[in-house]
Amino acid sequence: MSVPGKPVFLVIGAGAGIGANCAVRFAAGGYHSVMARRSDKEGLQRWIDHIEDAGGSATGTLMNAAEDGSIEALVEQTEAEIGPIECALYNLGAQIGDRRLEDTPHKTFELGWRLGTYGLFRLAKVLMPKMQERGKGTLLVTSATSAMRGNAGQHSHAAAMGGRRMLCQSLNAQYAPLGIHVAHILIDGPVDAPDTLGKILADKYAEYKSTRGPDGMMDPAALADTYYHVAHQPKNAWTHELDLRPYNDRAWWNH
Amino acid sequence: MSVPGKPVFLVIGAGAGIGANCAVRFAAGGYHSVMARRSDKEGLQRWIDHIEDAGGSATGTLMNAAEDGSIEALVEQTEAEIGPIECALYNLGAQIGDRRLEDTPHKTFELGWRLGTYGLFRLAKVLMPKMQERGKGTLLVTSATSAMRGNAGQHSHAAAMGGRRMLCQSLNAQYAPLGIHVAHILIDGPVDAPDTLGKILADKYAEYKSTRGPDGMMDPAALADTYYHVAHQPKNAWTHELDLRPYNDRAWWNH
Amino acid sequence: MSVPGKPVFLVIGAGAGIGANCAVRFAAGGYHSVMARRSDKEGLQRWIDHIEDAGGSATGTLMNAAEDGSIEALVEQTEAEIGPIECALYNLGAQIGDRRLEDTPHKTFELGWRLGTYGLFRLAKVLMPKMQERGKGTLLVTSATSAMRGNAGQHSHAAAMGGRRMLCQSLNAQYAPLGIHVAHILIDGPVDAPDTLGKILADKYAEYKSTRGPDGMMDPAALADTYYHVAHQPKNAWTHELDLRPYNDRAWWNH
Amino acid sequence: MSVPGKPVFLVIGAGAGIGANCAVRFAAGGYHSVMARRSDKEGLQRWIDHIEDAGGSATGTLMNAAEDGSIEALVEQTEAEIGPIECALYNLGAQIGDRRLEDTPHKTFELGWRLGTYGLFRLAKVLMPKMQERGKGTLLVTSATSAMRGNAGQHSHAAAMGGRRMLCQSLNAQYAPLGIHVAHILIDGPVDAPDTLGKILADKYAEYKSTRGPDGMMDPAALADTYYHVAHQPKNAWTHELDLRPYNDRAWWNH
Repeated sequence: MSVPGKPVFLVIGAGAGIGANCAVRFAAGGYHSVMARRSDKEGLQRWIDHIEDAGGSATGTLMNAAEDGSIEALVEQTEAEIGPIECALYNLGAQIGDRRLEDTPHKTFELGWRLGTYGLFRLAKVLMPKMQERGKGTLLVTSATSAMRGNAGQHSHAAAMGGRRMLCQSLNAQYAPLGIHVAHILIDGPVDAPDTLGKILADKYAEYKSTRGPDGMMDPAALADTYYHVAHQPKNAWTHELDLRPYNDRAWWNH
Repeated sequence: MSVPGKPVFLVIGAGAGIGANCAVRFAAGGYHSVMARRSDKEGLQRWIDHIEDAGGSATGTLMNAAEDGSIEALVEQTEAEIGPIECALYNLGAQIGDRRLEDTPHKTFELGWRLGTYGLFRLAKVLMPKMQERGKGTLLVTSATSAMRGNAGQHSHAAAMGGRRMLCQSLNAQYAPLGIHVAHILIDGPVDAPDTLGKILADKYAEYKSTRGPDGMMDPAALADTYYHVAHQPKNAWTHELDLRPYNDRAWWNH
Repeated sequence: MSVPGKPVFLVIGAGAGIGANCAVRFAAGGYHSVMARRSDKEGLQRWIDHIEDAGGSATGTLMNAAEDGSIEALVEQTEAEIGPIECALYNLGAQIGDRRLEDTPHKTFELGWRLGTYGLFRLAKVLMPKMQERGKGTLLVTSATSAMRGNAGQHSHAAAMGGRRMLCQSLNAQYAPLGIHVAHILIDGPVDAPDTLGKILADKYAEYKSTRGPDGMMDPAALADTYYHVAHQPKNAWTHELDLRPYNDRAWWNH
Repeated sequence: MSVPGKPVFLVIGAGAGIGANCAVRFAAGGYHSVMARRSDKEGLQRWIDHIEDAGGSATGTLMNAAEDGSIEALVEQTEAEIGPIECALYNLGAQIGDRRLEDTPHKTFELGWRLGTYGLFRLAKVLMPKMQERGKGTLLVTSATSAMRGNAGQHSHAAAMGGRRMLCQSLNAQYAPLGIHVAHILIDGPVDAPDTLGKILADKYAEYKSTRGPDGMMDPAALADTYYHVAHQPKNAWTHELDLRPYNDRAWWNH
């Protein structure tokens, strides 16, 4: 249930990593967090309980973002039933692991674009006019190394994220002068996120974590602090792009 | 008709600008040029005649590149009936003019991706294995300013071209070590091309040209010389990315 | 006077803009701020008084950073007399206004490098080994649009800032894995700073400010909040580069 | 001796790699090549003989480019005694091998800047006004991976090359609209050059070359062909930046 008067924070891609931790962080900062994710209703409820136990407010829903109309309905419903979205986070990933071209089917490449680029466009189409009418709002976008460079096994992911980054710049160019803050947040290293990296690596996740050493994977709660900071910069000093990585990880441009 | 023994140059997007002029240039250099374009069979034939009058050889076909299977069939047919493709040029644009988000329908954004990003992926899927088997080949990709930065009216174009650029880097990372040259050619200024800019500006094209002054628009024949040069760099000295603009135009990063 | 046990924050370039405001912000966060600037002892003292009035602690000194040995002596003296430097901010500008090549004397170009690039190298040479021994520390570096692109009137400034940015990346590559956070902070818009932009524009400063409109110039106190946030990211989630600009200003890549 | 009527090509940094091979290539294209290098008068003479044996014309001189006035005198003397410089190549390197910060003395860092950045500025100061008066001319600048990213052992080199790249962009912004072509040529891989890489690797050069395999190092004669191509692009289609690397080398952004 929402709490009247609270600003609304909407997360699309509220898995147990950056998405859910941002919901927690924004709720702690006085927002009502609306969490949408693909699956795992119980997991979602645990995060809501966690937020409410801490005195915050949150609601959540399952949603297939790749499906036409889903994001649109979520935004409309949130605005109608909960309140105006002050800040939205587009946090859907499109990583499919290391895949050479021959291992990247056409459908996979298209799905990469649907989640990586097109979903953000769809969100912007429905949300930006509302924020424009209010003359304010924030759109945070989680992005990835592949937005900056293509690699041999990243045909689908890099194309999707390269599109995402250029779309963020376009949105920023149109909407920043209207008072809407768009930020492209470059996650350039491994996040300690059971719902994404944990699922990709499966059994090997624990082993992988141990090889990274202490502080060798990004704590999504730490990332959420930076997301929150960026969302609260005054409009005379906005960040559009920043990178984040663990201290012992190479930057994308180094090797 | 093809000429036995000639290497084959395939152009996807052989309009009366870069595409057709590259067909002319490669034919002059001893290639058989295969030209595919969306429409205007007569225009296409004039270019073929022009090439043959100059002693070269070329064939052409109309094709809707956005249609699934079209690019794939063209490549298969070319390889079967004409010969192995030594060099391919992906020259499809996805520019729709200056359009704010509210003027960019979902279908338009998707079509931008189909022509801007996905078509290149489809070409690579069918062509790269053949080139890999031969241990050589060249894939030239025409790109645009929007691959480097998003602007307020470029949501669709920038997302498509940003994806294109990252895909080119991914293809290069996988295939360059196998002897296949992938080049991302950044057209960062206006091309004197009646089939693209000419159609976008329509009546105002002549006026626009005059405001640019002499040498103020890129001559597609001059661009074709640079495409040809890049395609013939020895494998110890390959260019992956280069920019091109008229002397009196600002680079994309300046303002 | 310093306060025992407080971490030390050293600002090189503590003018009445980003530098002094960071001194204020870090002092509010529990640091002892050491402020070094070129001139205006009274102005410097007013900032120290301001910090102390708010219950913080700070000291300051005048210094010509372009002079060999000056930065080195400041670091040694600070470490010996006040305490280990936890965080340093290199905030020297090298902007000389819009100057064509013919209006850029050799000495000016060299001074640009001395302040823009070489001073940071000198600071790193004396400070990094100390931080390395302690296994921690933060080096914040203020940078400018000219680090990302050269413009017609920016020969000196762009060369200096381009060098600064690449030096920051080199320092980050060597020292981040040793636990030292290096951040390159891209100030991509006008700062409301009487000591720099105010002096460059002189009489026209008030007029310029009014044309920018409300929130049209960056409030250095707001910037200081972001500097402080970056300096306090946990080591699993460090930002190396971020940009900052007013909402109504174009990003460096747009035009 | 010069030949009346020939355009003049001036190389600063005419060692037995890119510099000398460009002298050969431009001489073959009808230029009189003027070659300046630091040392090895006999080696220089052999290149001149080689050019003359092929029916071309060239002259050469030893010069310490780091010395104030040297580049300036060379340009003045060339213009006075040989003819107007149609094309100049700034080919001085500033690579000092892999050096951590502690192994990079202040003098080394400064020398890196003197050769890497300042020498180009000095050349531009004396040459650009002459080219501007003639309304034409070309300035080619050899650059390096370090212009694009800093690495742990590249403090000096990256700072110097980062400055060089931004200076090239500034020169381009001012002079391209006046008809002067400035190109920043990114050498992103090993060149088979006995005077530079050969000297850095010394005894291990032969072994290194063998590990690279055939076509694994850039042939400077091949690079010279691309330099020549860029210098002869018509002014409606100029390249400002391009990269070059062997087919089996990773691009600077990949790892």
